[in-house]
Amino acid sequence: MSLMMEIEEQKNAGTHISGVESQRHAAVGLTPTYEGDFVLDGHLPLECGRTLAQPTLHYAVYGRLNTARDNAVLVCHALSGSAQVGSWWPELFADGALLSLERDCVICINLIGSCYGSTGPSSVDPETGNVYGPDFPLVSVRDNVNAQAQLITSLGIKKLRLVLGGSIGGMQALEWSIAFPGRVERAILIGVAPVPATGLALNHLQRHAIQQDPAWLGGRYSSLAQPEQGLALARQIAMLSYKSPKLFDERFGRKPNRNGEDPWALEFDGGGLTGGRFDIAGYLDEQGQRFINRFDANAYLAILRLMDTWDPVRVYRSANEAFSRIEAKLTIIGIASDQLFPVENVRSFANTIEESGADVEYKEMASEHGHDAFLAEQAVLLKLLA
Amino acid sequence: MSLMMEIEEQKNAGTHISGVESQRHAAVGLTPTYEGDFVLDGHLPLECGRTLAQPTLHYAVYGRLNTARDNAVLVCHALSGSAQVGSWWPELFADGALLSLERDCVICINLIGSCYGSTGPSSVDPETGNVYGPDFPLVSVRDNVNAQAQLITSLGIKKLRLVLGGSIGGMQALEWSIAFPGRVERAILIGVAPVPATGLALNHLQRHAIQQDPAWLGGRYSSLAQPEQGLALARQIAMLSYKSPKLFDERFGRKPNRNGEDPWALEFDGGGLTGGRFDIAGYLDEQGQRFINRFDANAYLAILRLMDTWDPVRVYRSANEAFSRIEAKLTIIGIASDQLFPVENVRSFANTIEESGADVEYKEMASEHGHDAFLAEQAVLLKLLA
Repeated sequence: MSLMMEIEEQKNAGTHISGVESQRHAAVGLTPTYEGDFVLDGHLPLECGRTLAQPTLHYAVYGRLNTARDNAVLVCHALSGSAQVGSWWPELFADGALLSLERDCVICINLIGSCYGSTGPSSVDPETGNVYGPDFPLVSVRDNVNAQAQLITSLGIKKLRLVLGGSIGGMQALEWSIAFPGRVERAILIGVAPVPATGLALNHLQRHAIQQDPAWLGGRYSSLAQPEQGLALARQIAMLSYKSPKLFDERFGRKPNRNGEDPWALEFDGGGLTGGRFDIAGYLDEQGQRFINRFDANAYLAILRLMDTWDPVRVYRSANEAFSRIEAKLTIIGIASDQLFPVENVRSFANTIEESGADVEYKEMASEHGHDAFLAEQAVLLKLLA
Repeated sequence: MSLMMEIEEQKNAGTHISGVESQRHAAVGLTPTYEGDFVLDGHLPLECGRTLAQPTLHYAVYGRLNTARDNAVLVCHALSGSAQVGSWWPELFADGALLSLERDCVICINLIGSCYGSTGPSSVDPETGNVYGPDFPLVSVRDNVNAQAQLITSLGIKKLRLVLGGSIGGMQALEWSIAFPGRVERAILIGVAPVPATGLALNHLQRHAIQQDPAWLGGRYSSLAQPEQGLALARQIAMLSYKSPKLFDERFGRKPNRNGEDPWALEFDGGGLTGGRFDIAGYLDEQGQRFINRFDANAYLAILRLMDTWDPVRVYRSANEAFSRIEAKLTIIGIASDQLFPVENVRSFANTIEESGADVEYKEMASEHGHDAFLAEQAVLLKLLA
């Protein structure tokens, strides 16, 4: 029986559509065994008090479900990720690494609010026939996890062997463990805690960058003319918190831009206010340009807001009430040079969870790569998780 | 003899104009004994290869020159400072603090490129009759120090008892010590080293913020309609590097904005992409608004560039050649929580200077206030300098 057939058989609280089954393996990264959409029935109730009509979850599956359906692993993606975890985190699947396509059925679901297949601000609201745009509601981490649980149920999976993620992916992994304690055997969270004040500030300034771009048009821009300058600047601001100052010093230092521009040139650009760029500036500009070709500004705003507002304790009477629900074995990893989620914050967050009685193993990743280390330093990460 | 008369008497390489002598002391901060303009004769040659015709230096004097003219102290200001050091750093003049109005004659000179009285992008180029705007050339830290030296000479001061500054002020203090070794007895530099990669990145993104504002108009905006949104965003980006994450967590944490906005409000602003602000966001927005009322966008760009390009070694054959020129006794202070000039960088910079044979005393300021600590934590600083 093919995976697609299995999936069709199991649908209950929603509908699976447009699935593609594939045996191909891409040159870069892995191609999913299956990639498709799951459309939830009716309305998804949201924490913000509104609902989302028939949202679509786009997801990818790597490997196959076993007969007992107890080999499922859910990988949750971060801000700008997609369901294709085999493309953006292929190292997880390497021989001897954390996941095995022989053993595991790895599932990854695009966040609601994103722009990689799941319902987001650029989708059409089935109730109005119009693109959501800036009217897209706040869909929280918890709302996403509730929707994901319906998809997991539809696949006949009662319990996930592992839920895993870094950054916003880690927020989802913890939220799964709290909201559905009986359905998660193990969870791994990397470089995550509730967003600290500096992170809230960084996200706020990224919103300004996008919303100050005249092309933003209050969020009602055409998909062919999105606020590129603002989105690029937002991405660049974020990049500063994804890497570490030490890494930037080693890689770029005070070198002039490798394209030949010279910040000290006697008469460059008149020698005036702008001048030639340093290498780090050229790098950031390139990162900004790459990003606008692959992401939507309103989706970016939606996920920033989901990130900002994540607080797993807020709806409970206490941290103890929230975290004592957890039955999964938790591994929480702080990254030594993380600028976005400082290691002290992650350590203290892990302590708080452990004090509620949860089974928490806390480890620290020695890396100069900053927040991105969970993607950039696989060898170090996998050794920690071994 | 009044100070103004003394000054008039001493003019040589330039002209003192529009001086105001005052015995008043303002309610907040000190009022200068004298405040006026010094116009350089002819053209100031610039490192960038261009010249600046008859630039004006606006400066303030606190206290009085003694007969030997050996009690002069030069305080150098940072990015957005002015000549009125008695207003922005009044604690230096407190009883028992570093400076004494009875003993010292304290001078502070507004940077060329700034918008507080010295020639800058909003000045009229005497050779064209037009406002410089974006054609204002790169006037480096060294160029500024060369111009300042003419002013100091015009006052009949052969040697400065002390040159002192934090951040860009410290750059000037060191540059004085290298360029005019016989004229500086002691120099104090706080929280400064050549701008590291992350600082270059932060400045680059601030330039983007200003130049992406449609009101920037390529730098040819009217003084009545400057690019306010972009300048505010630039200031906000900079603020993140002036304070420390720990300070922001203590002051703002994840609290909703104190004005009543709520990031989690069920239906705030439709519950959509923007939503209510956190407290840190409200704080930053207020800082941005304050800044646009007191600073000019092109002046900001000019000083960012001066800051970026500062490298005291670049025109010498080696660090040793540059720093072995120094005769002043140097005190260099690193700030433990500095995000803009990390304490490791300042320490290593101080070591490099000391290795050339200069008399360097290096100290660290224990503070959670980040880069701003040199202004925010006077008690700690003054104890270090006692």
